[in-house]
Amino acid sequence: MAGAIEFVDGGTITTPKGFVAGATYAGLKTFAEDKLDLGILFSEAPCNTAGVFTTSTVKSPGVTMDKERLAQGIPMRGLIVNAGIANTCVGEQGYIDAIEMTGLAASKTGVTPEEVLVCSTGVIGVELPMSLIREGVGHIDLDGQGGSDLARAIMTTDTRPKETAVTFELDGRQVHLGGIAKGSGMIHPNMATMLSFIATDAAVEPGFLQSTLSEIADVTYNMLTIDGDSSTNDTVLVMANGVAGNAPVTAGSPDADTFTEALRQVCTHLTRELARDGEGASHLIVVEVAGAANTTDARNGAKTIASSSLVKSAVFGTDPNWGRVLAALGRSRAEVDEDKIDLFINGVCIMEAGKPIPFHRDAVVALMKRPEVTFRLQLHLGDGEATAWGCDLTEEYVIINSAYTT
Amino acid sequence: MAGAIEFVDGGTITTPKGFVAGATYAGLKTFAEDKLDLGILFSEAPCNTAGVFTTSTVKSPGVTMDKERLAQGIPMRGLIVNAGIANTCVGEQGYIDAIEMTGLAASKTGVTPEEVLVCSTGVIGVELPMSLIREGVGHIDLDGQGGSDLARAIMTTDTRPKETAVTFELDGRQVHLGGIAKGSGMIHPNMATMLSFIATDAAVEPGFLQSTLSEIADVTYNMLTIDGDSSTNDTVLVMANGVAGNAPVTAGSPDADTFTEALRQVCTHLTRELARDGEGASHLIVVEVAGAANTTDARNGAKTIASSSLVKSAVFGTDPNWGRVLAALGRSRAEVDEDKIDLFINGVCIMEAGKPIPFHRDAVVALMKRPEVTFRLQLHLGDGEATAWGCDLTEEYVIINSAYTT
Repeated sequence: MAGAIEFVDGGTITTPKGFVAGATYAGLKTFAEDKLDLGILFSEAPCNTAGVFTTSTVKSPGVTMDKERLAQGIPMRGLIVNAGIANTCVGEQGYIDAIEMTGLAASKTGVTPEEVLVCSTGVIGVELPMSLIREGVGHIDLDGQGGSDLARAIMTTDTRPKETAVTFELDGRQVHLGGIAKGSGMIHPNMATMLSFIATDAAVEPGFLQSTLSEIADVTYNMLTIDGDSSTNDTVLVMANGVAGNAPVTAGSPDADTFTEALRQVCTHLTRELARDGEGASHLIVVEVAGAANTTDARNGAKTIASSSLVKSAVFGTDPNWGRVLAALGRSRAEVDEDKIDLFINGVCIMEAGKPIPFHRDAVVALMKRPEVTFRLQLHLGDGEATAWGCDLTEEYVIINSAYTT
Repeated sequence: MAGAIEFVDGGTITTPKGFVAGATYAGLKTFAEDKLDLGILFSEAPCNTAGVFTTSTVKSPGVTMDKERLAQGIPMRGLIVNAGIANTCVGEQGYIDAIEMTGLAASKTGVTPEEVLVCSTGVIGVELPMSLIREGVGHIDLDGQGGSDLARAIMTTDTRPKETAVTFELDGRQVHLGGIAKGSGMIHPNMATMLSFIATDAAVEPGFLQSTLSEIADVTYNMLTIDGDSSTNDTVLVMANGVAGNAPVTAGSPDADTFTEALRQVCTHLTRELARDGEGASHLIVVEVAGAANTTDARNGAKTIASSSLVKSAVFGTDPNWGRVLAALGRSRAEVDEDKIDLFINGVCIMEAGKPIPFHRDAVVALMKRPEVTFRLQLHLGDGEATAWGCDLTEEYVIINSAYTT
């Protein structure tokens, strides 16, 4: 059973002990007051580190390099990240620049380049202006309050930083787990969209850390997007430095459940924040599918509904057009018996046993004006359940994305 | 080798001999001058008939009934179709109404209900007002010039009817093949979106007719949408009445190639018209993928690019943001070697061997202002090739779809 997990007021990625961070404006994004676009996260102690990455066949050399470094199994010390330029589709130079970025961070912090990871996000097909990055790294001040600056530095079309942290007990020690994330377009993740970095001062066995991250990413970040959808740079990293002094968490231990639950809560929080801040979004959409024949059906159904442009447009217009929800469910190929489906919009039953029930349209429209619209489907076929998150499709989305490079 | 195939000026579904059609305004759509919403197609001779249908697990009872009737293998005489209401998700009453609709058309034309098919398109979850339909059927005048009225009667958010016909020779006889179609939203087909009906006065063996339709639908209508995407009512029907008097076309004959090519040309024409008239669309998008490792990769790549909201938004903004094209290609999981990819936008090479080549942004922006924007990718890996069609994503799309039922 998981112990008590509490969110930390103002928590961020440097809430866990032994982590420092900092960021600067290096000139990669269009200038604006207080803008940041280059940052470093560093741990005073070596970190067991796990990652999940884009499945796209077109990917940033940074992603390829990070996967190689994690595969070596050596502890990591930090990461360097830039926003504004994705360092993708630029040929051999991309690898050279990715390696140099880790070298710059390593020199600054006194570790080897092989102990540093790199991430980039932004426009594809543009080479990194390395002279600006070299200059910028020199201006980064690393400290224990730097997490929020790092959260701001990774933003692209995000309207606000996403950061959180929790605290809980493991092995009689108070430990912390904090993370940051950036996203933007939610239909198809925008150029190099989804980055999330998580730090913990808990000691965690590396194999368990990786399997837990993969499991949790599957029910959080991977439920933000349509099936198989992934950008060129998507990366989630978890670094565990063990500064809290607990006995390392291993698979199957009681602490494993607590740690997994803490990671789930942080990733769910960040996922919801990513959905809520989808480009142009005015509503967070939550789709819960229960009673599916199996988990795969539940996942596919929930994701297909959450990513349907018609459902998203209807939510924008606060139009209780539930036919589109059912059409998306059917399109997902989830097994259904139409005569058994119940559908709730923000808790109000719109359809019972497959038939629309009379409702006051005005009342449902009023419910849908809330910033969060939840569709809950009960299929009454089995035990499969899943939750997906998305946002509505607005005119603002089109305006943002019709002139991204110009 | 296929013989000469010529498009017929003003051609439509009643261009083939022996077909009559007609339509009326029955009151299923919001009234407007000259609006039509209920129609019948009828053949003076029995027709070998083939169909392809939605793969959605939530489907209209009309689709289920049509599949059952075609499975019996008896020739068909006609079809009845309404727009405005999809007759989907209305429980048992949906089946009863679908059967009654075929009965009404059968009584009017003097055939049995089992020789008639039915299609509906429009809003889901609303029962058909059968009294309006009974009344409406009485007002339909069937004649050999009625095809264009039928094309208008099946429109929902379409801004114009889609119809065409070709003529060619088979077995020394002049034959005709004509069709109509309706669509609308192209990201995810709108409620009960895609209907297409095709008639021919050629005699065609039924097994060959079905296999040819399936093959052609796969490279035309099925290349309009994202992978697996399908609405509750999607239906394509081909009726061949043999009035032209040719020896029936069978698989493997020279006539088979000619017939297949004629069907391909008509379906391609209608597919392009559907894409061009996508909801709110200002550009037709054509994506050609060549040199893929195999056909599946080419198809997945082309469809993923054509359905990418980011690509679609960029085309709307005439933004030569080719990074999004590559990101979508990678996301499709098509095998790629980044260092081999060539990309052309409207014939202008934007990337060669995986590297962006300097281009005059203004020139490409000017090219993209054309009503048709073609992305051509040469992957240099194999012989796989495919073409997909789509349209841009505009603010108008969101406006249309945010208030469809209200």
